[in-house]
Amino acid sequence: MKKNKSIFNKEIIPLRSKIDHIDSQILSLLAQRQDQVGKVVKLKKKHHIPVYHPAREEDLISKLRVQAGKANLDPEFMEDLYRVILRQSRVKQTDQMEHKGVRPGARILIVGGGGQMGQFFSLLFLKSGYEVNILTQEDWGKAEQLCKGIDLCLISVPIERTESIIEQIAPFLESKTILADLTSIKDRPLEKMLKFHPGPVTGLHPLFGPTSGSLDKQIIVVTPGRKSNDCRWLTEQLTLWGAVIVESSAKEHDEIMEIVQALRHFATFSFGQFLYEKQAQIERTLEFSSPIYRLELGMVGRLFAQDSSLYSEIIFATKKRRGLLKDYIASLNNHLEMLGKNDKQLFIEKFDHIAKWFGPFGEQALRESTFLINKLIERF
Amino acid sequence: MKKNKSIFNKEIIPLRSKIDHIDSQILSLLAQRQDQVGKVVKLKKKHHIPVYHPAREEDLISKLRVQAGKANLDPEFMEDLYRVILRQSRVKQTDQMEHKGVRPGARILIVGGGGQMGQFFSLLFLKSGYEVNILTQEDWGKAEQLCKGIDLCLISVPIERTESIIEQIAPFLESKTILADLTSIKDRPLEKMLKFHPGPVTGLHPLFGPTSGSLDKQIIVVTPGRKSNDCRWLTEQLTLWGAVIVESSAKEHDEIMEIVQALRHFATFSFGQFLYEKQAQIERTLEFSSPIYRLELGMVGRLFAQDSSLYSEIIFATKKRRGLLKDYIASLNNHLEMLGKNDKQLFIEKFDHIAKWFGPFGEQALRESTFLINKLIERF
Repeated sequence: MKKNKSIFNKEIIPLRSKIDHIDSQILSLLAQRQDQVGKVVKLKKKHHIPVYHPAREEDLISKLRVQAGKANLDPEFMEDLYRVILRQSRVKQTDQMEHKGVRPGARILIVGGGGQMGQFFSLLFLKSGYEVNILTQEDWGKAEQLCKGIDLCLISVPIERTESIIEQIAPFLESKTILADLTSIKDRPLEKMLKFHPGPVTGLHPLFGPTSGSLDKQIIVVTPGRKSNDCRWLTEQLTLWGAVIVESSAKEHDEIMEIVQALRHFATFSFGQFLYEKQAQIERTLEFSSPIYRLELGMVGRLFAQDSSLYSEIIFATKKRRGLLKDYIASLNNHLEMLGKNDKQLFIEKFDHIAKWFGPFGEQALRESTFLINKLIERF
Repeated sequence: MKKNKSIFNKEIIPLRSKIDHIDSQILSLLAQRQDQVGKVVKLKKKHHIPVYHPAREEDLISKLRVQAGKANLDPEFMEDLYRVILRQSRVKQTDQMEHKGVRPGARILIVGGGGQMGQFFSLLFLKSGYEVNILTQEDWGKAEQLCKGIDLCLISVPIERTESIIEQIAPFLESKTILADLTSIKDRPLEKMLKFHPGPVTGLHPLFGPTSGSLDKQIIVVTPGRKSNDCRWLTEQLTLWGAVIVESSAKEHDEIMEIVQALRHFATFSFGQFLYEKQAQIERTLEFSSPIYRLELGMVGRLFAQDSSLYSEIIFATKKRRGLLKDYIASLNNHLEMLGKNDKQLFIEKFDHIAKWFGPFGEQALRESTFLINKLIERF
């Protein structure tokens, strides 16, 4: 067996160096590709063409899948690979493009610009040639002066302070100034903005954290308030930075966020709390874990690696939200009898009923999460 | 603007065709790489060397990261890309290797081999040159005859029937035969096997569904019973197929699975039940969703796309498990007062306390899930 291994070690050397040589060639082609993409960006910049071109990407993927099949390569593999390449290309392009401003020179005041989200947007605006000023709690004295002649006043403060800040800042604004906020609830802040500012008003909710690094394909909900035409350059700018805009009424937005944010985060928090109560051996459970468990536990761990006061604001934002969470606990209590009676049959009935209600989403979710599990296996 | 666009459309053609040409060259190099890897497999097969060679992979990745940096390519991007390439290479190699049997010709009986998991293992054993027989409920009459002279009897039946099947099949086995089961609880089945069969005994729990397609890097928990030396070829075979073996006592395994399976699935089930009760607009919430919500909702949808009776078995398996789930509901009820009193401060205290308890896992989870979110953005 030992001898076998030493022969193997000798025989494999030329094969491995051939593979290494192929890898070097691939790398050099990728660098060439990056250069060409750089030229495309220059052209796009010159002609004001947006970076993301879904049709071109899908077309390219389809062609490569066919070519892969002919070359005896797995088309799925080829698609996986090019999704990585295309994303990198998109991020690079967006990086180079984002200096492009829709209204370079326009004057922007970010209230709460010292926070993470405020800084994130401040940097984006600056790179694109806007004039940006920051107003923090400490220098409120300068508020009136800083508001003079600005084109956009962007409120980026914690939920609980949003409404009072709007009331305080609005009187300083000129009627041409856009008043917009980034709060994760929209109904009441929008109402306040409309009440205290007679000019253009729009609500924004960026559905991502400031740590994302890029706006590439990130969703921003826009809840129009007043004079949407005057606000258009702002949403165009967000789109040019790579964001996807979803329009909604403030009421619909808030209802959906009760589920998408409050319920979900509360459920995750409660799960983490219970793991702590039971002193679960996280490390050891991970050794035993299928990738999907790793993923699910990762969602819990992820929550607790973030800012508790941010989550307290999201979860406790309104009385209606807190009511929903109480309903959630009540719904769980309804399962107690089933557990007590060991009633598997009832569980199966409930399960099948919900499965039917989920409909095709279940299959889609299975497909998507299986894809991710494979990514996780690849990497870790 | 229109004229601009038509000039752009003309000028971009040569750039795009250069990129297409580069892509064709990359594709052809990938095909060459695959051929070389094929030769490595032949060599490995000849010398009985396993497919997965972590050190070689990490070495290759490190080298490519350095080269990437020199070529002005993002090293992170290069690593992402090669994780995809290396996984594909590993799967291909495992495909070609798995015909290799540790004990070709050994005789295997799979009890419940008509089920999905039974079929999955049956196919693997067959491909590797084993003689495989299947025993289903219908032809129990042949049980005694099929047990004659077999080397391994593998029980692959639903949890609730495992113990009685062990009792029924054990008397037919010869003392040299390995008795093993695939059930997701291990303590009581192992006890039964040890009690009714005097020969080699081992418990196995594959931590993946039969739809995974491959054993590549999948975890199988082994709970040794008796005569581990005689069982060694079986775990060696699983390793050769690409699986990662985790050894544990049956008791420890069951305790960990209470959390990893029962609690987690029950929490997900309860979340789905509540979404149904509230008639949440799944489709619309997805339009508003950050990738992380899509991922989390995907975990819920994924559950309901699977077999309800399998999950009822996992959740209701033992009285101890059902007790744990009742504790979970009790723990949620403890939050009612906090919600009723709108006590954000208490939430923040609890949150920070749990965060501390999670320790570095939180940061790790944040990193891993951010990686996956990027994958999700890439793809969908």
